[in-house]
Amino acid sequence: MNQIARLLSPASVAVIGASGDSRKTSGRPIAFLRKHGFEGRLYPVNPRYEQIDGLRCYPSVAELPEVPDVAIILLGAARANQAVAELSALGCPAAIVLAGGYGETGSEGAARQEELKAARGSMRILGPNTIGLVNLTERITLSASGALDMDELLAGRVAVVSQSGGILGALLSRGVAAGIGFSKLISTSNEVDLDVADFVDYLADDPATSVIALYLEGLRDSEKFSRAARKAREAGKPVVVFKVGRSQAGAHAAASHTGAMAGSDALYSAYFRQLGVIRAETFADLLDIPFALASGRVMRGRRVAILTSTGGAGTLIADSLGVSGFETPTPGAQTAAKLRDLDIGDQAVLDRNPIDLTLAGLQPELMREAIGILLDSADFDAVISVVGSSGVAQPHLMADAIGDSLASSDKPVLAYISPHAPAAARRINGAGGVAFSAPESCASALKALAAQATWSEPSPESGTAQAGPEVLQDLPSGPLDEERSKRLYASFGIPVTRERVVGDGEQAARAAQELGGHVALKVLSEQIPHKSEVGGVALHLDAGNIGARLDRMRAEVSRHVGFEPPTFLVQEMVTQGQELILGFHRDPQLGSALLLGMGGVTAELFQDTTLHLLPVNLEQARQMLRELRTYPLLDGYRGMPKADVEAAAHCIVAFSDMAMQLGERLIEAEINPLLVRPAGSGVMALDGLTIMA
Amino acid sequence: MNQIARLLSPASVAVIGASGDSRKTSGRPIAFLRKHGFEGRLYPVNPRYEQIDGLRCYPSVAELPEVPDVAIILLGAARANQAVAELSALGCPAAIVLAGGYGETGSEGAARQEELKAARGSMRILGPNTIGLVNLTERITLSASGALDMDELLAGRVAVVSQSGGILGALLSRGVAAGIGFSKLISTSNEVDLDVADFVDYLADDPATSVIALYLEGLRDSEKFSRAARKAREAGKPVVVFKVGRSQAGAHAAASHTGAMAGSDALYSAYFRQLGVIRAETFADLLDIPFALASGRVMRGRRVAILTSTGGAGTLIADSLGVSGFETPTPGAQTAAKLRDLDIGDQAVLDRNPIDLTLAGLQPELMREAIGILLDSADFDAVISVVGSSGVAQPHLMADAIGDSLASSDKPVLAYISPHAPAAARRINGAGGVAFSAPESCASALKALAAQATWSEPSPESGTAQAGPEVLQDLPSGPLDEERSKRLYASFGIPVTRERVVGDGEQAARAAQELGGHVALKVLSEQIPHKSEVGGVALHLDAGNIGARLDRMRAEVSRHVGFEPPTFLVQEMVTQGQELILGFHRDPQLGSALLLGMGGVTAELFQDTTLHLLPVNLEQARQMLRELRTYPLLDGYRGMPKADVEAAAHCIVAFSDMAMQLGERLIEAEINPLLVRPAGSGVMALDGLTIMA
Repeated sequence: MNQIARLLSPASVAVIGASGDSRKTSGRPIAFLRKHGFEGRLYPVNPRYEQIDGLRCYPSVAELPEVPDVAIILLGAARANQAVAELSALGCPAAIVLAGGYGETGSEGAARQEELKAARGSMRILGPNTIGLVNLTERITLSASGALDMDELLAGRVAVVSQSGGILGALLSRGVAAGIGFSKLISTSNEVDLDVADFVDYLADDPATSVIALYLEGLRDSEKFSRAARKAREAGKPVVVFKVGRSQAGAHAAASHTGAMAGSDALYSAYFRQLGVIRAETFADLLDIPFALASGRVMRGRRVAILTSTGGAGTLIADSLGVSGFETPTPGAQTAAKLRDLDIGDQAVLDRNPIDLTLAGLQPELMREAIGILLDSADFDAVISVVGSSGVAQPHLMADAIGDSLASSDKPVLAYISPHAPAAARRINGAGGVAFSAPESCASALKALAAQATWSEPSPESGTAQAGPEVLQDLPSGPLDEERSKRLYASFGIPVTRERVVGDGEQAARAAQELGGHVALKVLSEQIPHKSEVGGVALHLDAGNIGARLDRMRAEVSRHVGFEPPTFLVQEMVTQGQELILGFHRDPQLGSALLLGMGGVTAELFQDTTLHLLPVNLEQARQMLRELRTYPLLDGYRGMPKADVEAAAHCIVAFSDMAMQLGERLIEAEINPLLVRPAGSGVMALDGLTIMA
Repeated sequence: MNQIARLLSPASVAVIGASGDSRKTSGRPIAFLRKHGFEGRLYPVNPRYEQIDGLRCYPSVAELPEVPDVAIILLGAARANQAVAELSALGCPAAIVLAGGYGETGSEGAARQEELKAARGSMRILGPNTIGLVNLTERITLSASGALDMDELLAGRVAVVSQSGGILGALLSRGVAAGIGFSKLISTSNEVDLDVADFVDYLADDPATSVIALYLEGLRDSEKFSRAARKAREAGKPVVVFKVGRSQAGAHAAASHTGAMAGSDALYSAYFRQLGVIRAETFADLLDIPFALASGRVMRGRRVAILTSTGGAGTLIADSLGVSGFETPTPGAQTAAKLRDLDIGDQAVLDRNPIDLTLAGLQPELMREAIGILLDSADFDAVISVVGSSGVAQPHLMADAIGDSLASSDKPVLAYISPHAPAAARRINGAGGVAFSAPESCASALKALAAQATWSEPSPESGTAQAGPEVLQDLPSGPLDEERSKRLYASFGIPVTRERVVGDGEQAARAAQELGGHVALKVLSEQIPHKSEVGGVALHLDAGNIGARLDRMRAEVSRHVGFEPPTFLVQEMVTQGQELILGFHRDPQLGSALLLGMGGVTAELFQDTTLHLLPVNLEQARQMLRELRTYPLLDGYRGMPKADVEAAAHCIVAFSDMAMQLGERLIEAEINPLLVRPAGSGVMALDGLTIMA
């Protein structure tokens, strides 16, 4: 059994700095362990007590009767570090450090956290600044969370890992109230040692866990997290994350809370999408989606039957589903006939959707049969049953009907509880159903179930473009000019404009002739990255007028930049096509990514861009293009010619290969615009900007 | 006292078809009336009983001892109509008809509903297909809603009008559970007579109501609703609406539920915006926002202080607020100094936001003072207090601190309840605070409070453009060709291209010369509305080439449409500027509206349009332009020339005036494109399409 497994399932626990007063934070861990039935050996350590709650209390770590599997350390920061050193020296596998005043509180705290890191030796640490962990599978509560005050804890198949202790308590208490059980809940907080990824990795192997829910403020080691998330995926365990830092306000608050670094939130979304990690959009989704996924039921399409006895709530659900892209088709002839055979009464409306059984249908046998018919029908991929006001007085009615129907099909069965009827919700959840009291929760849960059924990781095929090593050796440091940038891109197989570097009007005229007569003229200098702003770009020239234009440009640019640019670029004019932007983006947390955007000011106003972490393979590149909301502009929208999407995808892969090969040497790179020409005609980089380390 | 007032506050109630079995729907109204303390006179009517629950029961309406203020009719549809006729003949002011089987069930039901309409005479009807109404101000429950089973009802200042009876019950039970009280709840359902607007009008005068919450499936009389909503506004009572029919699925379900007509959901949004009615985005918002508004507190800016004792939940709130556009600045020096003077302890973090009192700050006196300091501070416009796990065991702690602080300031004070702690929420709500358990609810509530503080109805100034009546008399029926359309628009002051109608190449060449040499050529026929699709548009021509081009165009168009077009339009070429689309839109529910959109395929992909009901005045026209997400393209974005926005606004007003004057005669009208030229250069209609009745 490794150290993390020992931490989660200890046979013996020492509580350092335990207090006999269970109202104090330092008194809670022992009180909770005993209250919730911990069966292992428990050792309070505190020189001020002889015994606590009938347990012998030890004056120091050194005098413990055995090396405990886990130590919960309730001392203040300075003494906690000391205790960690002592426990590590004894060979204790793991400790939980509750004290705050570490990395989250400025430079002094950061130094204290470094000390703690040094003190731990090979012992594993949860925290500091953590509320601990709860193993509900085995009823082991190694935590001071006030949420454990409650008498009944509910074991279930959802595991929670939270970078906040308070949020852990909130999820635990909300879950229990809703009848949602957990397997493990772990608060990692400052993550001086064990982090979210370590526990995702552990939970991927935990037979009691089938879905992993994460509350994140920021990832400290994204590669490790990627490996753990993939492992969970391979084990068939969906990972759902709610991450703060979506706004500046939240990012700042997170930084001062647990010292988490922000990173780009949009890149986090791309990162999660790439890993197949589901991002919860509301805080409620963080419980609702995992709970629906833990049902293990499979959503194979988008057609939902709504079974109701109350018209209004059925309408509300239909509307919410419609907003989320689901369909609510009417039952087919065969299904409708079966429903009619139930003989519910005149007022029942069975040939529409919502299917309204009316109050006459509120009988266990009828509801059970109706749910069964809908689950059995090829017309629907899921069923939502609406619980009306009858659910208050008869909480068992729907619970029994749902419970009895589950075995006949693996399609999702949700319940929407229209009135305030927590007992009905708990009862349905307890019977294996999934009950929600927000219409929006039903829609998010089905969305996650549908996404879960269709998600597949793109094959890890790699790109093919390879530049010779001499290209890379030749590259100077600092900014590259446009011509040098595009030569670099071309060496990775990206088509670029034909062009000539010239020094004067005469050379320019000759170049214009060689390039076919219709050309652009640009100033060329790695010191002038933004050419247009200094009058350094002129379009639609020919051999006859380019010489004079070059002289004018030289004068204008000189005025702006204060020196006379020695070289210019004469470039073939290529116009027909759709413009994209392709850029390289480096994130301190998540690594390097490509940014793809539609060109033009209108698309820019809508921030029509997408991100993908490196490397990007061909399938992923195609996906990136389709993720642009203006993708139709490339796809023959309104009679426009179809653009060469396939060539664009190959160009993205080539750009990715280039970035991978340049590695740390690449600081910035951007093709803007990348012209995507009509299908069959390829793409062309019209401009390029690169900065090398 | 008018009939609606009698309906809501009856001194005597007859219950027609009452049953002695309180488990039956027909037994509930009397049971609920007595349970909740109705003090008026109560008359059961049913020939099968001598008495019900100790009350004398009358065999028929005719034998009632007095004409009741209200009759609750519990009979089936056919007999209900009969009872309505009898009660109307007696002079009864109002009846509530619970039976279904009317307009919501197809043509037979619709006929029955017409019968009911005829039977009512001058008596007012609530329903049919309604669950009734509840007047909590006076503890009068005229309803069979199962939600009234609960023992304690809570009076408050939020009124609910719902087109669904089930939703009424859901809101009532959810409100009571959250400690949110109501003044009146009314279910209008099929609205054979009294509709939502009637009750909004009534509630605008109701001293017990300060906010009106509506659950809508569709409006039957939008003009009446507009009047009522304006009256509520003028009385200082915000109206909040949750409307289904946002999706096709929901619209269909609503139609079969209460026979409501859908209308365009986007136009509903525009309509509500125009009226200053707040549209709730989630179902939970329909209670949360009115409840926050009912606090009567005022949000004058966007800066929010978050006071917490638990870092994670504070971060979560900061992040949600940031996503909704709020700011969470750090306390200024003076405020921070006052907070430090509270002497809370080393770990407290007082100079940041969230302001973290830590567990040491969980003392009533400290919290009261901290809230007071933040409310008093000029740094903040609102305060959100976070209730952590302490709220479970000590529900009064935050409630007392908030309750004591309210009087010192009129800024909003919300509480976010992090764990499941309904008792703490109820306690805070009871103390005059506003508690929510979803971070998103805090953000929506503050958004509504901020909008409420800044909303003002544009002055009802009218447009100035006036066309002579002869223009209108001349107009033929059916489609108008481009030239005729633009002449019509021009007569209302809209600038249009200069152009000549020609029949052959020679005339075209002459026209080209007259128009300055650079022209466009278009086929001109009211039978060819889509000219480009049949090869009927050619740009950038001159006097030299237009003749030949006309002959080619005539041949090509003939091939497409099967007849030789006799006339063509030669038009000056005007290119520089930004293109808009301006159209007329007629909605069966809400009336006529203008649609404004940005031109170009990219904006089209983002559906960048806005709607406004007629008439549109200058201030509203400017607002419409600013509502376009691509408005920056008109406003000097990225060094583009500023467009003549003011001229565009005047053009919108002129188009609105035209539509108002044409009234029912106008079926369709569209300027596409409307070119908005650089500031000072005005606008120009480049094309036009009109259909007249």
